[in-house]
Amino acid sequence: MAYRTVPHHLRRGEQNLPDYRHINPQGLVPAAEIDGQIFTQSLAIIEYLDETRRDPPLLPEDAAGRARVRALSQIIASDVHPIDNLRVLNYLRGPLGQPDEAVARWYNHWIGEGFQALEALLSKSRHTGRFCHGDTVSIADVCLVPQIINAKTYALDLSPFPTVKRIADAALLLPAFERALPANQEDAE
Amino acid sequence: MAYRTVPHHLRRGEQNLPDYRHINPQGLVPAAEIDGQIFTQSLAIIEYLDETRRDPPLLPEDAAGRARVRALSQIIASDVHPIDNLRVLNYLRGPLGQPDEAVARWYNHWIGEGFQALEALLSKSRHTGRFCHGDTVSIADVCLVPQIINAKTYALDLSPFPTVKRIADAALLLPAFERALPANQEDAE
Repeated sequence: MAYRTVPHHLRRGEQNLPDYRHINPQGLVPAAEIDGQIFTQSLAIIEYLDETRRDPPLLPEDAAGRARVRALSQIIASDVHPIDNLRVLNYLRGPLGQPDEAVARWYNHWIGEGFQALEALLSKSRHTGRFCHGDTVSIADVCLVPQIINAKTYALDLSPFPTVKRIADAALLLPAFERALPANQEDAE
Repeated sequence: MAYRTVPHHLRRGEQNLPDYRHINPQGLVPAAEIDGQIFTQSLAIIEYLDETRRDPPLLPEDAAGRARVRALSQIIASDVHPIDNLRVLNYLRGPLGQPDEAVARWYNHWIGEGFQALEALLSKSRHTGRFCHGDTVSIADVCLVPQIINAKTYALDLSPFPTVKRIADAALLLPAFERALPANQEDAE
């Protein structure tokens, strides 16, 4: 589908400006205007797109498969990403006065915890294929790849997570993932 | 539906014992055995129950309504709960050596950030009713009430969040929410 990107510079705090807070009172990205309405929270946005477009489908047909994909997604979207989000790192640096080394350890600790769980779940399941669930891309892959990119920020060793890495490598061969890389965004510096 | 609870004492670390890690490699509660399969991640479990039982329905019929309920739920389930989870508080106390007062401020800070966003979204929307979405309980209420209970741990002032508080009060009049209170669990101390 056609879309227009409106970038907000997070390190300059543009997500907290009144104009953006009016769109998303939480002051977090992304917010998406679709079908004339504002949607927030990445997983809710993706599920809306899946329910209204389903092109390509990003969730399996069966309820148990959907639950598996949602759980894998939430391991990243609930239990890694929010703990490593910029506002949390800023709280560690500011109110808690933590040095950069401690922030780097924090960052990798939570990615590592998430990847450890994902590796166990992915490596042992007959549902895992070329991607997290079978051989087609699902929401779980959409959540996984950004954390692989983040893991490079502080040089996390990925060797304990071979299945996670293999799936991310497969996803990054696809043009849609390639186009979504941070360096390929219009406001990349 | 009938269910059997198997409690794990989190402060004693029972969620990290091998037997439980075998069920849920992430070492977090809950894990639910339903229809002969193990499910993890609270929102994924609730959506599975909604898809397979829908008694009562916990998501609206329309895609935009579902996206709104999911976004409200994720403000809690992604952006409050995981940051205030026991393992994160333990990291603050342990590796970061933070005193109890700093941990208490951290805890309330993230509940406050979440409630501020929820208050703005709930108080301004025509979709808000007796509960977060209309006059029937949804996943958003299921996520909201536990945080109201948590907010009492460190005595967070709820007066800036009147809509949030009104909805939680309404939910707590229902027997299902009353039965789910921490004090009413079989292993409560």
